[in-house]
Amino acid sequence: MTDITMIRAAATRLAGHARRTPLLSSPFLDEIAGRRVFVKPECLQHTGSFKYRGARSAVSALDEGTRARGVIAFSSGNHAQGVALAARQFGVPSVIIMPGDAPRMKIDNTRALGAEVVLYDRATEDRDAIGAALSSERGLTLIKPFDEPQVIAGQGTIGLEIAEDAAAMGITRADVLVCCGGGGLTSGIALSLEADAPGLRARPCEPEGFDDVARSLASGEIKRNARTAGSLCDAIITPQPGNITFPIMQRLCGPGLVVSEDEALHAVALAFSRLKLVAEPGGAVALAAALFRADQIEGEAVFVTISGGNVDADVFCDALSRFAV
Amino acid sequence: MTDITMIRAAATRLAGHARRTPLLSSPFLDEIAGRRVFVKPECLQHTGSFKYRGARSAVSALDEGTRARGVIAFSSGNHAQGVALAARQFGVPSVIIMPGDAPRMKIDNTRALGAEVVLYDRATEDRDAIGAALSSERGLTLIKPFDEPQVIAGQGTIGLEIAEDAAAMGITRADVLVCCGGGGLTSGIALSLEADAPGLRARPCEPEGFDDVARSLASGEIKRNARTAGSLCDAIITPQPGNITFPIMQRLCGPGLVVSEDEALHAVALAFSRLKLVAEPGGAVALAAALFRADQIEGEAVFVTISGGNVDADVFCDALSRFAV
Repeated sequence: MTDITMIRAAATRLAGHARRTPLLSSPFLDEIAGRRVFVKPECLQHTGSFKYRGARSAVSALDEGTRARGVIAFSSGNHAQGVALAARQFGVPSVIIMPGDAPRMKIDNTRALGAEVVLYDRATEDRDAIGAALSSERGLTLIKPFDEPQVIAGQGTIGLEIAEDAAAMGITRADVLVCCGGGGLTSGIALSLEADAPGLRARPCEPEGFDDVARSLASGEIKRNARTAGSLCDAIITPQPGNITFPIMQRLCGPGLVVSEDEALHAVALAFSRLKLVAEPGGAVALAAALFRADQIEGEAVFVTISGGNVDADVFCDALSRFAV
Repeated sequence: MTDITMIRAAATRLAGHARRTPLLSSPFLDEIAGRRVFVKPECLQHTGSFKYRGARSAVSALDEGTRARGVIAFSSGNHAQGVALAARQFGVPSVIIMPGDAPRMKIDNTRALGAEVVLYDRATEDRDAIGAALSSERGLTLIKPFDEPQVIAGQGTIGLEIAEDAAAMGITRADVLVCCGGGGLTSGIALSLEADAPGLRARPCEPEGFDDVARSLASGEIKRNARTAGSLCDAIITPQPGNITFPIMQRLCGPGLVVSEDEALHAVALAFSRLKLVAEPGGAVALAAALFRADQIEGEAVFVTISGGNVDADVFCDALSRFAV
């Protein structure tokens, strides 16, 4: 099970590979939020999302013989690119099973990073059966997107960096808002904060209709989403929290925050104009929560992850045309 | 006159205020350029451009009594915002004289940062007369946009950071491409590289029709542009190199590089998709040169400044609709 020792070991393996992203801010965002907003832009991470950290952590933790046979992953895009790049860096093959309706940029990039991409139809095909057949045939190791200790450890390195930067600024109490799908990033950050910044509290942020983690935390048991597709926040619409991530979030996280898809798009537009960052809608839900759910947040400062920036131009420009200042 | 001692002193004054921007890269950009491309994203600097460095350097170098009376600047936008923020941080008034056709975002932001904005008509009004009257009336100190030693020193701090990062990566010979208007950024970086990374060579990059610096360097004397407006690269269309900046560039810089406006817009789209950065057209000319003038560049790696990201949404989305991958 992931613990702080495993996260620190992942940080050592990631050193010189994952980018140490800065903390950004804007007086214009502070004014909207009514408190200081510090943004951790993981859209600037390699492959355009935090997923590279967990993927590299997991691939680098495999023993050499296992790794040499290759890895396989299921992903709508960001985990796919992370695994593809990590595998390429180790010179081993990767197979990524992606839904046919994933954003084009994510499919193209995954291929360009050297992965063999297998597309399936979400409605009619069983991705697990496809994956199982390929894995047994080629001896591939499955890299799960979130419910996997070494992936959680890699994502947790973001929490180490936030804790270090918060301490340098003298901030000892604050909410840390995290874009949340299956909970790998949220639980990893929560574990790091518990160890290095116990006054900072991780809180999962989700889009309306896909708030399984918020409802699971509120009810004390794992809840599923009614829908499993059909959101611009494609990066974070997993069906339910993970069996490993949920108990960690239950023990350490504050209540979940839920924003509308329009609020996420508004945050995309504000990240464009105020931070000069490209955020994808799912990667902007935590920023949206900081800006538009200020009454549900505690403290004079708030930390926000922008978890990814892999957005197609038409979606991005639609957000700007509706919300750009 | 600006020298390395003055630049190091500016770096000390800027510490804890200016952001230490990271170096970013993408395998997709490397492939287009045919060499490794390292991008210094000053669009992530406070106020969305490198100009804050020079402005804060100059305002912080004033003696207290002079500074208290306030500062004045002429600017189409980025220098304006830098001076406005620096003045506000010192609690002193700022007056910014801007052309009425400057991008709306730049005018609005300058006002929001606390400056008194005076708009003038480029065609019919004399900005120098307007500025002189205000200055003498109120005892304001003029902060010039580039031909000012302490401004050059502030911009030069970017060169110190590039030199440090290049050394850490073991890169000792490379071209450093710099978006160039009046030459403040280019000459400042050139001075820092001379001292700290003598194998790295600064090269000014400009849009077609506004290549006064390239022509001045080629001919050995200061040349003017025929036009003084009418480019999407509004940030860098000064009429001619400065009297202070030109001799520095002449002594230290390699030949200028010139790209078309369409190539700059193409680079804007690639910064969106490959770096998750918002670059303004003028801020993307150096990236455009790295990608589309590869045959005029030397070395296995190239450094590129993205000088700013203050672009209106319609211009940005026009670039994406034409060039996004």
